[in-house]
Amino acid sequence: MSIYVVGTAHTKFGKLDGKSIYDLINEAGKSAFEDSPVEPKDIGGIWLANFNAPVLNSQNHLAPLVIDVSPDLRFKPATSVENACASGMTAIRQAINALNAGEIDVALVVGVEKMTSLDTKGVTYALAQAAHWESEGSKGMTFPGLFAEFAKGYMKKYNISLERLREAFAKVASKNHRNALHNPLAHLPKDISYEQILNLPEEKNPIIADPLRVYDCSLITDGAAAVILTNKKEIAKKYGPLVEIASIKHVSDYLRIDQKKNYTLEGAKIAIQSAFKEANVTLDDLDFAEVHDCFTIAEILIYEAMGLAKDGEGYKVIDEGTVLPEGKLPVNLSGGLKAKGHPVGATGVSMAVLATNQLIGKPIGQGVKNAKIGLTFNLGGSAATNIAAIFKRVN
Amino acid sequence: MSIYVVGTAHTKFGKLDGKSIYDLINEAGKSAFEDSPVEPKDIGGIWLANFNAPVLNSQNHLAPLVIDVSPDLRFKPATSVENACASGMTAIRQAINALNAGEIDVALVVGVEKMTSLDTKGVTYALAQAAHWESEGSKGMTFPGLFAEFAKGYMKKYNISLERLREAFAKVASKNHRNALHNPLAHLPKDISYEQILNLPEEKNPIIADPLRVYDCSLITDGAAAVILTNKKEIAKKYGPLVEIASIKHVSDYLRIDQKKNYTLEGAKIAIQSAFKEANVTLDDLDFAEVHDCFTIAEILIYEAMGLAKDGEGYKVIDEGTVLPEGKLPVNLSGGLKAKGHPVGATGVSMAVLATNQLIGKPIGQGVKNAKIGLTFNLGGSAATNIAAIFKRVN
Repeated sequence: MSIYVVGTAHTKFGKLDGKSIYDLINEAGKSAFEDSPVEPKDIGGIWLANFNAPVLNSQNHLAPLVIDVSPDLRFKPATSVENACASGMTAIRQAINALNAGEIDVALVVGVEKMTSLDTKGVTYALAQAAHWESEGSKGMTFPGLFAEFAKGYMKKYNISLERLREAFAKVASKNHRNALHNPLAHLPKDISYEQILNLPEEKNPIIADPLRVYDCSLITDGAAAVILTNKKEIAKKYGPLVEIASIKHVSDYLRIDQKKNYTLEGAKIAIQSAFKEANVTLDDLDFAEVHDCFTIAEILIYEAMGLAKDGEGYKVIDEGTVLPEGKLPVNLSGGLKAKGHPVGATGVSMAVLATNQLIGKPIGQGVKNAKIGLTFNLGGSAATNIAAIFKRVN
Repeated sequence: MSIYVVGTAHTKFGKLDGKSIYDLINEAGKSAFEDSPVEPKDIGGIWLANFNAPVLNSQNHLAPLVIDVSPDLRFKPATSVENACASGMTAIRQAINALNAGEIDVALVVGVEKMTSLDTKGVTYALAQAAHWESEGSKGMTFPGLFAEFAKGYMKKYNISLERLREAFAKVASKNHRNALHNPLAHLPKDISYEQILNLPEEKNPIIADPLRVYDCSLITDGAAAVILTNKKEIAKKYGPLVEIASIKHVSDYLRIDQKKNYTLEGAKIAIQSAFKEANVTLDDLDFAEVHDCFTIAEILIYEAMGLAKDGEGYKVIDEGTVLPEGKLPVNLSGGLKAKGHPVGATGVSMAVLATNQLIGKPIGQGVKNAKIGLTFNLGGSAATNIAAIFKRVN
């Protein structure tokens, strides 16, 4: 059954002083209805994606908060979903199941994270809970530390020098910061070249977890996003442009990094390739991709999972220009998690919003002419949750 | 489409020293497969219900941990679901949607909470996050405090004396503690009469939040439970007895108590009555009920939501004996949250396990002869999440 996006919302991403998690949920929810032919009374179910409001905001049980968007949402079923940084796409997938089950006709999905309420130490603790606390976090392993393990494993497995990999990292970071220059909702747009990044003095780009430096890490960001979904074509037609979620594939893996290969994202590859298959598209059909660059190494490993390069050669993709805005397959035109920002629970929903708006010719930021097909890839933990989706313009 | 339970598991509920949240997930997951004709390789999707491991155990992103139950679960989609004390039934509902959507044939749902890792103050903080932190928790409102508001609102609305209501509370508590005497997995079985409870010295039954005393509150408990569900009759037949989830209705309400009536559970009534309707049963058809007695006042208000008494007369139900083990409709034969224990994320799944085992004639604790139909009711926050389900024996 076809699932259509019939409304989107996206707040500013950034350090949003004065906006609480309650404000962000409300803003995204209200704004989604302003964009949609659907009214609150038409909603059959609500899903709320969030990662760690318990630690960041002393608040759990967030889904019922969406009722504050409109009294017409009262008594609808509201469900909180969490899968670390992939909470957003996990929530969208639950909504799609409810639509496909015939349980409801229209779903509202809101993703939110208010991260700047704590200091960096507090946020580092909250993020470490996306990995295995007993064997990782409690031993001092941070999230940058886990992705540093992937970077080290990758260098070792494929015999890549640190200098060479750092160059690729800097090119990914430069691309995403520059892409964000066009995105009015991005957290950290910056016109910076990869040479400039490589030449930054130590204090401007310190090591966070060797070999990852500050410029390899995504941001601590506040923000929310929302989508309204339906499987009823008559409702979708009222929205105008028909954007379909042609496939959404969710692949889970062990939480602990030492139970997985540390030089590839196995689950990501399965998720992306099976999404291609289900949607009956190939890599060549894609007009753009929004993928999970929580760290620069992640974007490089995702290139391999997509099939842009064979294993061990993903770091060369950025040299070839393919993923640049003018390339054959622009990746993270929005600026990605690196420069758009990464309010964890909102990130997957943000990807859906970006893909939809790109496909209806109202891109948030840079556009791709006549875009018909886009990929989103949302990752949680050290690749314990992997969700790929294919968005298609079908009219 | 019919949804069948084809495997259940239930750990001991209690202060389980030496058992981590990881151990509890593993124990429940492995034990569910021991009880089921289904093997891990047959599972299409995994749902993990938990309320507040981020605060209680420094662990989030729990769903992928279920993969540790069996390597055959690797790469299946695993989803964490949270809706406070109703997380368990919320997760079951997401699994049912996936089954009804045709996305999968068999689902594994695990519910878990490891609460005794923190002291009472820490647990009180964790629980307060099920309510509205900004306007309730941060102002010093605790969970017992919120249900004390219901108790006070109820007394005022219906002009019931404190003495009279306390007698009803003590009768509910006595019933549930005594019921738990027969449940080998219960946390706090106790042979205590209501007169004994009423006559306890202040230090043995202190006020927690006036008018609620210690004996009116459920327990801080560790535990896990699991169910395996399918919509394939050929799989269900291998299990033997056919237990169907004939209806599951989820109704959400405002998170804040001051946005709701404080003398009734509006959402509970809608959920329970609509579940009856969908399953085509009436109150008279029920052989037993397992309901959410997080506080004694909650069980009394749920009597009204079920229709056992009209509004304002629920406190008399316990006098009439209807809900006692030998009554027409035994409520909380397991001991309920009050005496079985309330490991928050496990509670809703525990209700499904209890209902199933009751219906297949292998009750965990006291049995009801020839039980054919049971109701479960799982509540989250100050009645912000309300989920009723009807379990039927169909062969």
